[in-house]
Amino acid sequence: MPDTTAPMPPTERIPFEQLRATLARIFERHGTSAEVAAVLADNCAAAERDGAHSHGVFRIPGYLSTLASGWVDGRAVPQVQDLAPGAIAVDARNGFAQPAYAAARELLIAKARANGIALLAIRDSHHFAALWPDVEPLAEQGLVALALVNSMACVVPHGGQQALFGTNPIAFAAPCADGPPLVFDLATSSMAHGDVQLAARAGRLLPEHCGVDAGGQPTRDARAVLDGGALLPFGGAAGGHKGSALSMMVELLAAALTGGNFSFGFDWSGHPGAQTPRTGELIIAIDPGKTSGQAFAQRCSALVQAMADAGQTRRPGQQRQHQRADSLAHGVPLARDAWRELQRLAGHADN
Amino acid sequence: MPDTTAPMPPTERIPFEQLRATLARIFERHGTSAEVAAVLADNCAAAERDGAHSHGVFRIPGYLSTLASGWVDGRAVPQVQDLAPGAIAVDARNGFAQPAYAAARELLIAKARANGIALLAIRDSHHFAALWPDVEPLAEQGLVALALVNSMACVVPHGGQQALFGTNPIAFAAPCADGPPLVFDLATSSMAHGDVQLAARAGRLLPEHCGVDAGGQPTRDARAVLDGGALLPFGGAAGGHKGSALSMMVELLAAALTGGNFSFGFDWSGHPGAQTPRTGELIIAIDPGKTSGQAFAQRCSALVQAMADAGQTRRPGQQRQHQRADSLAHGVPLARDAWRELQRLAGHADN
Repeated sequence: MPDTTAPMPPTERIPFEQLRATLARIFERHGTSAEVAAVLADNCAAAERDGAHSHGVFRIPGYLSTLASGWVDGRAVPQVQDLAPGAIAVDARNGFAQPAYAAARELLIAKARANGIALLAIRDSHHFAALWPDVEPLAEQGLVALALVNSMACVVPHGGQQALFGTNPIAFAAPCADGPPLVFDLATSSMAHGDVQLAARAGRLLPEHCGVDAGGQPTRDARAVLDGGALLPFGGAAGGHKGSALSMMVELLAAALTGGNFSFGFDWSGHPGAQTPRTGELIIAIDPGKTSGQAFAQRCSALVQAMADAGQTRRPGQQRQHQRADSLAHGVPLARDAWRELQRLAGHADN
Repeated sequence: MPDTTAPMPPTERIPFEQLRATLARIFERHGTSAEVAAVLADNCAAAERDGAHSHGVFRIPGYLSTLASGWVDGRAVPQVQDLAPGAIAVDARNGFAQPAYAAARELLIAKARANGIALLAIRDSHHFAALWPDVEPLAEQGLVALALVNSMACVVPHGGQQALFGTNPIAFAAPCADGPPLVFDLATSSMAHGDVQLAARAGRLLPEHCGVDAGGQPTRDARAVLDGGALLPFGGAAGGHKGSALSMMVELLAAALTGGNFSFGFDWSGHPGAQTPRTGELIIAIDPGKTSGQAFAQRCSALVQAMADAGQTRRPGQQRQHQRADSLAHGVPLARDAWRELQRLAGHADN
């Protein structure tokens, strides 16, 4: 008999399309347009499908409380501006970042192919999701892509005492011969904010060099980080200045360059329940065919092989690929209670 | 009386132009063309002027032994290819990266201004210098710039056992109102290779999570890292996978995208004395005026102020600026013996 150490909550396997449709229905019932609902549902269902639970259905309550607070415009129609042969701006008009991106993605791809490189600068946008879904589709079309988004002040600059930067992730994707794109998505903070909350609930100490308390002193107490404290940039004792510099770069590229708010530059105190940062996002797409012909995807594949030969047993993004294949074959695993709650939110009274 | 703990070696203050001219003479006497000598001397003298000693005159013996080994072509004439409205390639033809960049920099600036963003892909090039001199001049002209260069296999991918990546630095520069550009230049490895050598000489232990020995086991022994061991990516125990992902990105962008060698992809064993990696470099330039008008430099300045208000007492690049001002006012400080040796190498018999 299997050795069971703790009872597992009962789970169900939900077909991906059913999960996506349910999420779209939830968004639309809670204040978004049908167009916005479709984009957000696609993003959120994809994260759950790939096992990126912190950005999957776990986010739904935050989306809904934010929509209810009036902080974000779930019906915003993004305004695309074709600025130059290699540059596009999108004013998200206080809406979500993903619909703003969707409105300009085909133009970005066309510009990257024509010019070799192009950028998409999104401003006045709310990004509350994983960042890798913003770059992976570009790599699936043969482009190299980089995305940067700033968020909300919860990270202390290196050597400082007060939170200023967001968790400020950087995502990268590259096409790879003989396999899916090579993708990573990393916060420039020591930890994701959600992981601090989980540690606080479980009473677990944080690793060293992750956070400070309200007085700016180093702490491993997750509650102290949450109660007026802050996270540190990633990199630890010797490399924190590097994580901090990268986080600063994200502020400059995602906010200053786009015209969006800095992570410390918005005031949501008048909107209790608001959880989504109102900032900006930068996406850069490069056509490797312009500089290195068809060889790029082969060389990407060769690097992956060399990394495996050097003993790196798991390449970036590989775990997501495995979970994705499993979810598409057998359905997306969801705790039964969570699935019931989603159906309730979607107004499916017969469940 | 001052409390002296160790005798300081006697130093001299050398006027910057005199240092630059002396270095140019050295390069030219040891196998480079006058054009290449001028570019390398400018770069090396600027590093010494700014107190970036690891990339200043400290590098001269390595340059000269490499030139003597026949590994690099000091007279290479770079070949510039205008690939697309936003893309330039330069074949450095087994020469140094800096002359290849110099040959295309004005075209890169023009393309960035016309298109909003442009890239310069340098291949078959040797980069043996600090990277910030490649981005700072673009920011002085109002552009945002990013440079990535791969080097030679001395860094183990996260979770692996063998060296594969180079120290793979990333440099970034942005124009800033009311002051010099905001500039950083960071290795994606835990330490610079030269700092490991210095620690080995001094018998100092390395910080934790910096290196592994020849068997792939963690070590704080600098000699063990140098004797068949390797460095780790920056980020430490909790963030090493992030440093590793960024280092992988540098390999893909600086090598696969440009057509240059990976850090593990060249064989210099037939050239004893060779120290310069034969790889590639990518430079991306963005015109912030296209997306955010003149506001960008003001917002950069506002972020710097906010970082100071948050307690970050030293902004990235600030120490270099201070040393630069001092060097330009009073001369570049050099140990007297080092200056005598430079003059000897330059053939100045009267010193």
